[in-house]
Amino acid sequence: MNKHTPQSEFETPEVTTGPLPSSRKVYVAGDQYPDLRVPVREIDLHPSAGEPPVPVYDTSGPYSDPAAAIDVERGLPRTRTAWIMERSNVEEYDGREVRPEDNGGAAGKYLAREFPVRNRPLRGTGAGPVTQYEFAKAGVITREMEFVAIRENLGRKEMLEGAAARVALGESFGAQIPPFITPEFVREEIARGRAIIPSNINHPELEPQIIGRNFLVKINANIGNSAVASSVEEEVEKMVWATRWGADNVMDLSTGRNIHNTREWIIRNSPVPIGTVPIYQALEKVGGVAEDLTWEVYRDTLIEQCEQGVDYFTIHAGVRLPYIHLTADRVTGIVSRGGSIMAKWCLAHHRESFLYTNFEEICEIMRAYDVSFSLGDGLRPGSIADANDRAQFAELETLGELTKIAWDHGCQVMIEGPGHVPMHKIKVNMDKQLRECGEAPFYTLGPLTTDIAPGYDHITSGIGAAMIGWFGTAMLCYVTPKEHLGLPDRDDVKVGVITYKLAAHAADLAKGHPAAQLRDDALSRARFEFRWEDQFNLSLDPETARDFHDQTLPKEAHKVAHFCSMCGPKFCSMKITQDVRDYAEGLSDNEKKDLERLSAEGMAQMSAKYREMGAQLYLDEDKVNKDKE
Amino acid sequence: MNKHTPQSEFETPEVTTGPLPSSRKVYVAGDQYPDLRVPVREIDLHPSAGEPPVPVYDTSGPYSDPAAAIDVERGLPRTRTAWIMERSNVEEYDGREVRPEDNGGAAGKYLAREFPVRNRPLRGTGAGPVTQYEFAKAGVITREMEFVAIRENLGRKEMLEGAAARVALGESFGAQIPPFITPEFVREEIARGRAIIPSNINHPELEPQIIGRNFLVKINANIGNSAVASSVEEEVEKMVWATRWGADNVMDLSTGRNIHNTREWIIRNSPVPIGTVPIYQALEKVGGVAEDLTWEVYRDTLIEQCEQGVDYFTIHAGVRLPYIHLTADRVTGIVSRGGSIMAKWCLAHHRESFLYTNFEEICEIMRAYDVSFSLGDGLRPGSIADANDRAQFAELETLGELTKIAWDHGCQVMIEGPGHVPMHKIKVNMDKQLRECGEAPFYTLGPLTTDIAPGYDHITSGIGAAMIGWFGTAMLCYVTPKEHLGLPDRDDVKVGVITYKLAAHAADLAKGHPAAQLRDDALSRARFEFRWEDQFNLSLDPETARDFHDQTLPKEAHKVAHFCSMCGPKFCSMKITQDVRDYAEGLSDNEKKDLERLSAEGMAQMSAKYREMGAQLYLDEDKVNKDKE
Repeated sequence: MNKHTPQSEFETPEVTTGPLPSSRKVYVAGDQYPDLRVPVREIDLHPSAGEPPVPVYDTSGPYSDPAAAIDVERGLPRTRTAWIMERSNVEEYDGREVRPEDNGGAAGKYLAREFPVRNRPLRGTGAGPVTQYEFAKAGVITREMEFVAIRENLGRKEMLEGAAARVALGESFGAQIPPFITPEFVREEIARGRAIIPSNINHPELEPQIIGRNFLVKINANIGNSAVASSVEEEVEKMVWATRWGADNVMDLSTGRNIHNTREWIIRNSPVPIGTVPIYQALEKVGGVAEDLTWEVYRDTLIEQCEQGVDYFTIHAGVRLPYIHLTADRVTGIVSRGGSIMAKWCLAHHRESFLYTNFEEICEIMRAYDVSFSLGDGLRPGSIADANDRAQFAELETLGELTKIAWDHGCQVMIEGPGHVPMHKIKVNMDKQLRECGEAPFYTLGPLTTDIAPGYDHITSGIGAAMIGWFGTAMLCYVTPKEHLGLPDRDDVKVGVITYKLAAHAADLAKGHPAAQLRDDALSRARFEFRWEDQFNLSLDPETARDFHDQTLPKEAHKVAHFCSMCGPKFCSMKITQDVRDYAEGLSDNEKKDLERLSAEGMAQMSAKYREMGAQLYLDEDKVNKDKE
Repeated sequence: MNKHTPQSEFETPEVTTGPLPSSRKVYVAGDQYPDLRVPVREIDLHPSAGEPPVPVYDTSGPYSDPAAAIDVERGLPRTRTAWIMERSNVEEYDGREVRPEDNGGAAGKYLAREFPVRNRPLRGTGAGPVTQYEFAKAGVITREMEFVAIRENLGRKEMLEGAAARVALGESFGAQIPPFITPEFVREEIARGRAIIPSNINHPELEPQIIGRNFLVKINANIGNSAVASSVEEEVEKMVWATRWGADNVMDLSTGRNIHNTREWIIRNSPVPIGTVPIYQALEKVGGVAEDLTWEVYRDTLIEQCEQGVDYFTIHAGVRLPYIHLTADRVTGIVSRGGSIMAKWCLAHHRESFLYTNFEEICEIMRAYDVSFSLGDGLRPGSIADANDRAQFAELETLGELTKIAWDHGCQVMIEGPGHVPMHKIKVNMDKQLRECGEAPFYTLGPLTTDIAPGYDHITSGIGAAMIGWFGTAMLCYVTPKEHLGLPDRDDVKVGVITYKLAAHAADLAKGHPAAQLRDDALSRARFEFRWEDQFNLSLDPETARDFHDQTLPKEAHKVAHFCSMCGPKFCSMKITQDVRDYAEGLSDNEKKDLERLSAEGMAQMSAKYREMGAQLYLDEDKVNKDKE
């Protein structure tokens, strides 16, 4: 791994490049579309393993490909432009001019440098399908659909047909996960509203990915500068860094100045979908005063971001005037930033939310660029005490109504969910969301299962995330250790991503995804056989695994030693087990029968003894004295 | 917090003393036994909160009491000796002489210093009850029983009678948690075998604590030197450190040399129950060669440890000869150290396990000192692939048989559980354990819900621990970030303990423990009201919470600021919520009715619009063009 520094002056983002340990990037072509290059990371194992490489889902984009020429000043290759143009329902146009307020009025040395390349935006002409939802409805399998199908099938062939074939029987709570994902299955799921491929036609740099409960559980990482801290440079590297460790999506939650320019750098260099909360930028444009927000400013912001290539928008259109007072008795009121901005606006004007009253126009705008909805839960609970209350569920019911309207306008939709919820109240959230929102994908923040561990909220929420992912949530929004306390740094982003990857994977295993267990089994075999290097390389975070091992046993020799630091050389359970296995493999059928008889007899004798003994409760003192001698 | 260094020479353990931030230690007296001094930590809040101190369960012993005189060379006060002597079924005797093999033959400068004070051991005379189980069966409420009842009632009065009274309605899966815990309820639960108070009569220094599914979920921290690393000094401080952060129990899993002397230092200074796996020391006594183990060596080790005051023994008596070959097809074979030692012994001699054939004599020994059984799961799964297989469940059935025998001998019993289990296979473990083992407390290691995240196994297992704790597990054995990789250091122990505290607390909340939410609510109110100091002080790890906050906003002024680093001063959801609350509180009943009407009308209009619109799928292009202008 190294920091990639192009030949350029100040403020060019330095990003992390290079392959992960023992990993190669390979690209898989499509059947229907042979020009597709679907990225897969293959982890090579030690020759002594006698096992093929383990394929893993790869979100890291070209940055981890040594053959790719990375130039953050130009952005990633715009591969999807040709796909989109071929579909011919779009047009290029001049697009909106960037205005000073787009960057919060930053000027001079405070203004972040513009991205060097300017592309003319595309938009739907209205002459035919633009969104993946519309194509799916029209029966068309897009390149994006075959791309995600190939990605989802990772390892399924190996798992279902290989020597280690085993049937994964999970509990899927009604999800319908097929053994193999066909492009047609993808199309059906999208047409059904049950899955989305966030993919703005102005973000042709992205590698498509699907979000839905019959697919692998995805995770999202949040980045974003704020009024208080951080720079464009840091944010671009945070995006690259988060996707390197497995973020399937990134949300740019920037506030303060330079929102427009920061976002442009991020999108042009992002291999994953980028989401935003447009109300944040709209608020900046009116000087941070919620009451001064207008529909016009908001609409202008939507178009600005549609043209830049944002793939999904969080829109808190369910925060309605009549619901706001329902939060008054809460312990923590309204904790969603977007939700509280809209609540403030509604109260100041005593009017229904302009997001709600203009919802259809929002749909029309988003459809023209294929920006997906992420209907925000502005009234989500901010504490255990407030979980599953009337305010939360009233909003969820409205989000269900809005989902159907957005579908009718041809838009892709997912729904955001809580928040802070104790374990026994998690499942009802999932069940109600599926029911109210017609199975549109659920996208939850955790939920945090207790409030008492600030500093560890990646864990309090990782518990809830794994559970709700199992129950059917399609994407999990990560939480870092800094949640509630401060802004995450590079290490926090990584810890948040890895925590959510493991939670999502635990959910995939429990749902019975056919190939999910492939990596667990490969790692466990490596562990059992003392292939330390393979164990590190197969783990979600090879660097940390290796580092932790080396803290106790730093010598290279110990990486091939048939013992580990916990037990030392003479006293090792894994070593003893190898002997047991040798013995067991030598047992004849007759000997096995003898063992079964012994088992039954032993149990019977024990029971007999127990009956004889009756209620003997006290100790034979002589025996204890004898023991001492 | 400071390191306490008594006036003494080399090798005196330095331990961490001093109160936690903003915390006072108070002691509660009993009703039946007014001489009891049950420790409670009270966290004082900022005067602006207008709230009483928040009481929290305190496992830290006298170390966090500034009024206590700590002298690790003398050990903690032997408070319980008077209680035990008063019950008069015990006798003092000379006890077994320490032998060179007890310390693995360590000599000269390699021999850890003996603990300076030697006490003559006690044992039951056989004339009447000795164990808490026997007293409970005989209808006697011991001081230990009232002590634990008071500890468990923490906060219940405040929660059930206070201004913030709310009924905690959890899902307890058949657990029967009363609003208040009476000493009589404790007695009944112990007599029923459904709870234990691990409390060797030779560990009078401990502050009693109860383990059972109708009580707060407890956690265990493992410490222990090994052949490869660490010293007596470190181990004593690890014990103090672990209990400071909330470990309810500590297991000393030392291997290698100096096991006896290390353990003596730990027990004499431990305010919490200490568990061990006696087969580890027995193996050291026969030079580390499993085949050379004998019943005599093992029995001698039991008595040695009974006299020292170990409170519970992990005994792998369910690893029977006829089960061993059932592990042959596993991905990771036998991963329990004790289990693999016994498997190797059984195979080498082709004989049934001496732990199984001598089980009744083991019961007699343990009963004489009130050492509790922790029936070990030597065949627990070591990988996702091996979860819930026949080997694991055959052993569990045997543990059920042995539980009943141990009860009949008057012993307290808990049962150890897995291990590595995917989420959808966790609950059947709990259900089967309750059924097979007559509701004896379950004590599980995690379980880890995926194998792919070494370095993060405190989290992969914290997920499983929270879930199985909710389902009914009484104690959770912690896992540190170093699991599978190396020996945990001080920081790892803390991270492991805090992770498991939050998992246990999440389980308590979900089970519906009446007072569990008290601390969540107090912290959430502090968060909502920007009482940063209170938020830190109420958290499980105040140091980390404060440190994370200060990394972003280090200035003291920011700790009273009405905004936080995530949003900055102008843009803060919590601040806006305060305005909303002011508004809502001013609403008249009529105004509220208007809002309800608006809500219904809005929904109806939306639906009407939706119907009108019909199947309109494409965008009005003119509108988009207008937006741009």
